[in-house]
Amino acid sequence: MRRVFEEELNDLHLRFSEMGMMVNEAIYKSVKAFINHDKELAKEVIANDHFINERELDLEKRSFEMIALQQPVTTDLRIIVTVMKASSDLERMADHAVSIAKSTIRVKGNKRIPEIEAEIADMADKVKVMVEEVLEAYVKNDSKKAKKIAKMDGEVDLYFKQIYKSCIEEMKANSEIVVGASDYMLVAGYLERIGDYVTNICEWIVYLSTGKVSELNTTNKK
Amino acid sequence: MRRVFEEELNDLHLRFSEMGMMVNEAIYKSVKAFINHDKELAKEVIANDHFINERELDLEKRSFEMIALQQPVTTDLRIIVTVMKASSDLERMADHAVSIAKSTIRVKGNKRIPEIEAEIADMADKVKVMVEEVLEAYVKNDSKKAKKIAKMDGEVDLYFKQIYKSCIEEMKANSEIVVGASDYMLVAGYLERIGDYVTNICEWIVYLSTGKVSELNTTNKK
Repeated sequence: MRRVFEEELNDLHLRFSEMGMMVNEAIYKSVKAFINHDKELAKEVIANDHFINERELDLEKRSFEMIALQQPVTTDLRIIVTVMKASSDLERMADHAVSIAKSTIRVKGNKRIPEIEAEIADMADKVKVMVEEVLEAYVKNDSKKAKKIAKMDGEVDLYFKQIYKSCIEEMKANSEIVVGASDYMLVAGYLERIGDYVTNICEWIVYLSTGKVSELNTTNKK
Repeated sequence: MRRVFEEELNDLHLRFSEMGMMVNEAIYKSVKAFINHDKELAKEVIANDHFINERELDLEKRSFEMIALQQPVTTDLRIIVTVMKASSDLERMADHAVSIAKSTIRVKGNKRIPEIEAEIADMADKVKVMVEEVLEAYVKNDSKKAKKIAKMDGEVDLYFKQIYKSCIEEMKANSEIVVGASDYMLVAGYLERIGDYVTNICEWIVYLSTGKVSELNTTNKK
């Protein structure tokens, strides 16, 4: 029984990590598409989203069955509950990648601001690092690393504030920029939300090793 | 054993519903404070947020212990997993109420647009109805109602788009409005996110009665 459980648990971890990589790719591609005005790539992100949704359902089903059939307690139970919660967060991160992709498809020859697009690209790089690191912290059950990643979300929040501010300055100076800048604000907002979800996963990782639910990055909450 | 379980389950439901009411009050007060420029009320929302966080931890702990000690299966297990997931959603809704309250405190004599403020108030009313109804659907385990509420989120999304559009028009026409309108866009964005979280809870309610995780309101996802 124990060996079956261990195998199922390993499988669950593997499938969760794979889901994380799928989500990371979706975020990366959606931002790349937005910056490069690449509508084809944006469509690809949207078309592939159902694979991520299906993976969430698969993880949900497997976790539930493991709890019902194997009746795990303490740490084992905690691990499975964490997969259930964190896979919801991953799925929502992918939804925001889809939102970014949809913004890309909507854009019709707006006036662009290269400086702000560069800031968005930097912000996206930071978010990408957070996503990659949180998957590693999850696999290694590394709560110290998780706390460090949650702190990075403060930097993502700062990017958001900075981009918001830049957009406001540009819009004040030039009304032609308003439509494009509003799109920048939306996309920066999606990235900021993705950072929040990474922070949630960090909280689950801390919960996994301590059994305590803590709220990380509270100081930077807007 | 079964009687103890039933009592604990009732208690869990009651505490979850109470948490929902606390969150609903926070959202209501935060929007009221924003519209009425009432910084004192906004501070109250921020000061009370810790009660909501504590309630989430309490629900998390109780749910976990119930699974570990009583080893429920099928429907009972599903109910408890739902409480765990939905209480995370409620807590995040409250975080957005805090964000709205913080916007209110930040505002310094911006030029205001009464028409857009009225639209935000209407949007907030719609969100309030959604929150109240989802708590009722949860208590009554009413998946039909849950699906109906999820559809209302489409209307909330439309409000968001409309407010966004109005803000863009106003900013194009008058650069003095840029700072204030950006705040409107942020607040409308927080309300839109709250609507998304209500939709998530609707999905958990459907999951509760069908055992299937479904994604409601996909057509209106931005």
